[in-house]
Amino acid sequence: MGFAGLWDSLLPVGRDRETGGYRRYSFTEADLACRAWFGEAAAQRGMRAGGDRNGNLWAWWDVPDGPAAEPGSAVVTGSHFDSVPDGGAYDGPLGIVSAFAAIDQLRARGFAPARPVGVAAFCEEEGGRFGLACLGSRLLTGAVEPAAARELRDGDGVTLAAAMAGAGLDPAGLGADDGLLAGIGAFVELHIEQGSALHGLGAPVGIAGGIWPHGRWRLDFAGRADHAGTTRLADRRDPMLPYAATVLEARRAASAHGGLATFGKVAAEPGAANAISSSVRAWLDARAPGQGILDRMVSQIEAAARRAADAEGVRVSMRRESFTPPVEFDAALRDRLAAALAAQGIRAPVLATGAGHDAGVLAARLPAAMLFVRNPSGVSHSPAEHAEPADCAAGVAALAAVLAELAGR
Amino acid sequence: MGFAGLWDSLLPVGRDRETGGYRRYSFTEADLACRAWFGEAAAQRGMRAGGDRNGNLWAWWDVPDGPAAEPGSAVVTGSHFDSVPDGGAYDGPLGIVSAFAAIDQLRARGFAPARPVGVAAFCEEEGGRFGLACLGSRLLTGAVEPAAARELRDGDGVTLAAAMAGAGLDPAGLGADDGLLAGIGAFVELHIEQGSALHGLGAPVGIAGGIWPHGRWRLDFAGRADHAGTTRLADRRDPMLPYAATVLEARRAASAHGGLATFGKVAAEPGAANAISSSVRAWLDARAPGQGILDRMVSQIEAAARRAADAEGVRVSMRRESFTPPVEFDAALRDRLAAALAAQGIRAPVLATGAGHDAGVLAARLPAAMLFVRNPSGVSHSPAEHAEPADCAAGVAALAAVLAELAGR
Repeated sequence: MGFAGLWDSLLPVGRDRETGGYRRYSFTEADLACRAWFGEAAAQRGMRAGGDRNGNLWAWWDVPDGPAAEPGSAVVTGSHFDSVPDGGAYDGPLGIVSAFAAIDQLRARGFAPARPVGVAAFCEEEGGRFGLACLGSRLLTGAVEPAAARELRDGDGVTLAAAMAGAGLDPAGLGADDGLLAGIGAFVELHIEQGSALHGLGAPVGIAGGIWPHGRWRLDFAGRADHAGTTRLADRRDPMLPYAATVLEARRAASAHGGLATFGKVAAEPGAANAISSSVRAWLDARAPGQGILDRMVSQIEAAARRAADAEGVRVSMRRESFTPPVEFDAALRDRLAAALAAQGIRAPVLATGAGHDAGVLAARLPAAMLFVRNPSGVSHSPAEHAEPADCAAGVAALAAVLAELAGR
Repeated sequence: MGFAGLWDSLLPVGRDRETGGYRRYSFTEADLACRAWFGEAAAQRGMRAGGDRNGNLWAWWDVPDGPAAEPGSAVVTGSHFDSVPDGGAYDGPLGIVSAFAAIDQLRARGFAPARPVGVAAFCEEEGGRFGLACLGSRLLTGAVEPAAARELRDGDGVTLAAAMAGAGLDPAGLGADDGLLAGIGAFVELHIEQGSALHGLGAPVGIAGGIWPHGRWRLDFAGRADHAGTTRLADRRDPMLPYAATVLEARRAASAHGGLATFGKVAAEPGAANAISSSVRAWLDARAPGQGILDRMVSQIEAAARRAADAEGVRVSMRRESFTPPVEFDAALRDRLAAALAAQGIRAPVLATGAGHDAGVLAARLPAAMLFVRNPSGVSHSPAEHAEPADCAAGVAALAAVLAELAGR
């Protein structure tokens, strides 16, 4: 089956009829349908498939003899099925569908791998249900404590342990799987670009340089509830004002430092139209090309928040809720990818990205790399996310070339 | 019973133990307890009490002979029991408790009224349950359609009709009550000041000059959902930015025009910390000393919202959701109040207010006036709302003087 058939068979799963966006949350009915699709795709190809201790799925194109038995010999590709609320079709699934399609291409041209080739589907990459991004790969590499993970709760208060058990998986086994990791020599994740850099460069595929350090900060502006119709401006302690000033300063700081800063979540209390807020709580998402730059950018935003709060008699506290240090992908692996693509006449510019990925988590334990596929509008985490069929085909061809290079004799 | 005993007996009703704020929502258990308290206060004073067609309560100090039978002879005072979420103890109840306490004072000194004296408790003044402020007085005066009112819903989807029926009241009778209104010659509402003007003037009581025109506008900023970690600043259409600019401009405009402007309610969609918002919806509360000033102020805010939205590729729409024209209280009645207070040595400055009141609604149909009691912090719609006992006593004395003037021979 070609890419299009595989792609179309997965497309309806978990799509909301009204918004056209995807709601593929881990261990829900939509997710179980994706997992069944994975098992079927593996079976159709005669690949050995199953889950690991952490709810991630693996399908293997085994090699009977030779270096298969050697530690660190396997070449793995893959991505994730799960989506953000009303996310697009490509973020995640494109990497899994392209993996099977690339294997089909290799087999069609008679390629015989010298090392095992695996396809992986990591769970809860978006953190869309349990709030912790890259949960499946973090558990696999030991970057998160199994006991803490089991107690993570979704918006309805359901724990990860209960959700896994409900999906027929055993949460007791969660945790680092060094044996599994030891067998892998390289991991390559193909992903839709979540920006429009490739569009600007006129290239259908690119190679990841690294992942920017990024984090999330919670800001609490505490003012004083008052009547909006009677409290003189001079008597107010309105937390909405320093919040607004901080939003604008965050954009200025991001622009000045060449980074990204976003306020996408805000809650005002008591939240009545005729009441001055007692408090405004908001979350800053900040990312930058380097640790020092990010530190300076966030410091500038925090200083502005304090100045603006002081001017209005408002107290502000700022707390880092999550943080991911910079990831520099393995340079030797990146060079092999670039050379393999160049040999096929594929120009693949190297791009840094502000988004976290399972490949970034795995990079702490083994050589990892990423391929990006052009996203003409740059829109992601939205039903409008799109890649042209020709670019998806270019992505599959590039991935096949990379697998041939890494798993060949 | 003096003011303090009456006040203390009402104080625990509907108070939340954790916040110390009041949750006296219309037709709930707390409200029914307030209504029972009203009936008991009337009975203790031998006053004839009952509800009208619209759920408002009335207690009458009747006059057996004389001008009692004449249309427009009664003098009514009162306010409301209901609160905003976690409101203070004084906003509303102070006017009802002070009414009974003033009657006690008049009786204690042997005052014999020449006209009936009424105490009224209007329902749903805050709109805290059904969203329409001054609902009881608006129904009474015919300013709101009974059929539309019956269909108003609270946050749980319960209609006003169902809530009234559940409280043992008949919603079928809702509507203008011209007979009741025709009997009233003057209405005087005593209310805690919801600002600190009297504190600044060093006066325990004041007289209302008028109510500023005020309204509520909904602003919808429509942008484009995108990934916060990968979308270049130049590619964003982030509605949070023009929202923030509008918040700051609203404060500047209010300051420049001598009015008030507040954003106390805001909702961002999808509301994820790592997503650029697809939309930000927010509500502007704006009030000013005159219609022309308010118009200019709101126009300035709207123009700024459009400019800021255009600069970010965001669409904005602005719609007026509610509006109350300016109220100028009856000048002759105000002068009589001022003279009566001056005769008692009570200095009572005249203040305009930005808040709506039942007295403002009734002013459209009969001579109405208001007395304000000093609020040292100016805080209102908050558990911290407060008036000193000595100032409450001054309010009762002023109200007694006013009732003696209006209901005397």
